[in-house]
Amino acid sequence: MKKTTVLGIFCSLLAFNTAYAADLEAGKATAAICAGCHGADGHAANPEWPNLAGQNVKYIENQLKSFQNGNRKNELMSPMAQSLSADDIANVAAYFNSLK
Amino acid sequence: MKKTTVLGIFCSLLAFNTAYAADLEAGKATAAICAGCHGADGHAANPEWPNLAGQNVKYIENQLKSFQNGNRKNELMSPMAQSLSADDIANVAAYFNSLK
Repeated sequence: MKKTTVLGIFCSLLAFNTAYAADLEAGKATAAICAGCHGADGHAANPEWPNLAGQNVKYIENQLKSFQNGNRKNELMSPMAQSLSADDIANVAAYFNSLK
Repeated sequence: MKKTTVLGIFCSLLAFNTAYAADLEAGKATAAICAGCHGADGHAANPEWPNLAGQNVKYIENQLKSFQNGNRKNELMSPMAQSLSADDIANVAAYFNSLK
């Protein structure tokens, strides 16, 4: 294996790890706007709203995108989701998944 | 307090307890049709599907009713929900809520 290939793989792994750590911190910051309903610990304040602690990342991402594009409608979540970028969605989904 | 009032309260409590016990057992039976995707233990086999273990009863009930009446649409869940009675929904929601 060439030295440049090894260096490339090393840098890719480093970038991946760095990005992942940043995701959870950024996700925690974004999750502040969700905490009023879904709880700071991912356990909802009202039984009509879902607990998100430990929920699957892909499922949370897909639901937020569905609220954005109108495939899923909810008077609270549809407007809330509009403010989120694709990165916000990925980060906040990873954050809620990380909670017990 | 009259004896008949005391007896009435006792019977009400007995009926409530009996009904609650029956709910979880009936819910477990109904949940067999959900297990292929949401897992026998409420943990989904695919990250695109939600974990339901410990999810709030009212939230699960509302989502199943939304799939039934078309307020929420999903190619898998919309037809699955059609087969459920109001009792099935209450029982299966209580069952998934009871899982860790």
